[in-house]
Amino acid sequence: MTYDKPFLPDEFRRRVQDVKQRMERAGLDLLVCQDPANMGWLTGYDAWSFQYPQAVLVHLELDVPIWMGRLVDVNSAFVTTDLPPENIFSFSDHLVNHPELHPFDDLCQLIKSRGWHSARIGVEMDAHYYTARGHQHLVNGLPNARFFDSCGLVNWARLVKSKAEIVYMREAGRIVSNTMLEVISTLKPGVPQYQIAAEVYSSQIRGIDGKYGDYTSACPLIQFGDNTNAPHLTWTDKPLPKSGLVLLELAAARRHYHAPLARTVYIGKPPEEVKRLANVIVEGVDAVLEIAKPGEVVEEVDAAWQNILKRNGYVKKGRSGYSIGLNYPPDWNERTVSIRSGDRTVLQAGMCFHFQTGIRLEDFGAAISESFVVTEAGGERLTDVDRRLIVVD
Amino acid sequence: MTYDKPFLPDEFRRRVQDVKQRMERAGLDLLVCQDPANMGWLTGYDAWSFQYPQAVLVHLELDVPIWMGRLVDVNSAFVTTDLPPENIFSFSDHLVNHPELHPFDDLCQLIKSRGWHSARIGVEMDAHYYTARGHQHLVNGLPNARFFDSCGLVNWARLVKSKAEIVYMREAGRIVSNTMLEVISTLKPGVPQYQIAAEVYSSQIRGIDGKYGDYTSACPLIQFGDNTNAPHLTWTDKPLPKSGLVLLELAAARRHYHAPLARTVYIGKPPEEVKRLANVIVEGVDAVLEIAKPGEVVEEVDAAWQNILKRNGYVKKGRSGYSIGLNYPPDWNERTVSIRSGDRTVLQAGMCFHFQTGIRLEDFGAAISESFVVTEAGGERLTDVDRRLIVVD
Repeated sequence: MTYDKPFLPDEFRRRVQDVKQRMERAGLDLLVCQDPANMGWLTGYDAWSFQYPQAVLVHLELDVPIWMGRLVDVNSAFVTTDLPPENIFSFSDHLVNHPELHPFDDLCQLIKSRGWHSARIGVEMDAHYYTARGHQHLVNGLPNARFFDSCGLVNWARLVKSKAEIVYMREAGRIVSNTMLEVISTLKPGVPQYQIAAEVYSSQIRGIDGKYGDYTSACPLIQFGDNTNAPHLTWTDKPLPKSGLVLLELAAARRHYHAPLARTVYIGKPPEEVKRLANVIVEGVDAVLEIAKPGEVVEEVDAAWQNILKRNGYVKKGRSGYSIGLNYPPDWNERTVSIRSGDRTVLQAGMCFHFQTGIRLEDFGAAISESFVVTEAGGERLTDVDRRLIVVD
Repeated sequence: MTYDKPFLPDEFRRRVQDVKQRMERAGLDLLVCQDPANMGWLTGYDAWSFQYPQAVLVHLELDVPIWMGRLVDVNSAFVTTDLPPENIFSFSDHLVNHPELHPFDDLCQLIKSRGWHSARIGVEMDAHYYTARGHQHLVNGLPNARFFDSCGLVNWARLVKSKAEIVYMREAGRIVSNTMLEVISTLKPGVPQYQIAAEVYSSQIRGIDGKYGDYTSACPLIQFGDNTNAPHLTWTDKPLPKSGLVLLELAAARRHYHAPLARTVYIGKPPEEVKRLANVIVEGVDAVLEIAKPGEVVEEVDAAWQNILKRNGYVKKGRSGYSIGLNYPPDWNERTVSIRSGDRTVLQAGMCFHFQTGIRLEDFGAAISESFVVTEAGGERLTDVDRRLIVVD
């Protein structure tokens, strides 16, 4: 089968080596990854198969990881990874959706067959698809093993992006910039909301200059008028009003690397309070991009933003951004660094963030976000859409 | 805020009543639902917020469920449900993505504050987003409670669809039929794969006759040529060849009710072996639709299909279909009934299934599936696309 792998074999080797070093430091012999982004980052594995149990195993003694999944997905593992055939295994199909048995029963057998029954095993306790039941079957099936929460060990290894990864991040940024502009051009009174969502999807995937997009880890998040205070509601058939706010939070994904972007649009003549909030947000993002250099501490980045909000009489609760990169549904947040008070992570060149900027007041909200990569010169934007309240007359 | 709820309050009351009866029979006082489809089915709650912990609680003593989620999603709960404000709670935002704390710590406090600290609590051990870590925080935070796997209690309650639900299933069927036809019309040699995927998304959401579509629980699954043996691979920029197979498995979702549909297309002159397999699949589905009446046992439906395959020299491993209805990413399978040997569920009018039909031979695969509702007259198709190998010249 024909398939263009997103990275050269060396890149995967480096990643596995890095993860094994982190495992040694954490005192783990074996790591069981179920997070599809971690599985993909370690091996290249890429298929919409995360609705069922599957795993990539990294063991200190192995040069190359092991993949285990459903029989129906074995060919996808052969096609998308460089793993040798002897490292690719399938569960018995009758274990799927079985009331008593579980595919991880077969995983336990595989682990035992390698002599790893008493290993110190790291598992991704809070990965989206690592269910309580899957964990129970692993623990019960390997009574001599000791289990530890990997605490996102691979997610943390993904934090600093390689040059090859940043190429995809920039391409995702170009796609989402194009999508945002295309979508804004469709915002006219009377257009039903779903038509705007349809345009987002189509544009995200068509991409730009022959660089197509993958499915993004969340749907387009678009809010209209008084729904701008409920940021995760999705589209309906309501027509766009003659005047009012539209908030768009979109992403594009290039080989599953995500660049999210939020913009605030006003149809008609914007009230002064909306213009003022937008201006303050842009000023706050300027401050963030200015100081987001290697060596800076994450919570100081948040403080720079909070100071500008405070000086202008606004309050933002909760975090103001998060690390981004390779991801799969349901989220494009890497679940490592949160830009908020208390996060003492030190910035390094090559880290990528979505600085989210959503501020929700009593009556309305606004967001003018940026995805950026940390460089010696500060945060470098991955996208290229005007940073202002966009007015559609 | 303006929002059209998908069902009348009575429908939700009946559902909660049904679930409480099932809880009594299962010996549960309290049910903690995290599956977004179960949360939505019980309360109407609908937002792309399942990337974070959230829950709907049903207690035998309460008439109405409790919703708990992130502060940012409280407005979505107000808008999309009929729950009274005193039944809507939010986690402290600093608990999100926290290395030691977890939003379910607040859920434990809520449960204790109601005096339910020693309740018999059902949890959805194998729901996609019910992570091992979330479970651990619940168990540790409620040391006097007893925890039980609900074993998909609400999923099973969802199995027989109400008349109001079947309206949405039929609408989803009409949308996906339209999408399939629109997409087939774009299949021409030289068209890049991603363009076809973009067309699927756009058409699914635009819908038909003013009935728009929601995001579907999985991406369009489209395979080309020799990749038809890797059914969960996604699109690339490869152009469609001058001749060869295209397998499409798509769905549409109407108010999140899903109708999936698979069709097999041949560009150019199809080989006899492909035509023959397609004909046998259609004959097998005929047999399935014929016997899928109330009172029939699920594994007999599978046997009818398997007999026709066997008589023609084909073998299908694994299950041949599953229950469908309301769903959220990453899967449109309800995770209850599997159409396969050993499933002794007795069919009832109003159950809905996707009869998947995918058969993968050494060199190629084919699928001509149907989504259907069980009626006294047999399985009634929800979709309306020619049931044959579709040839594009």
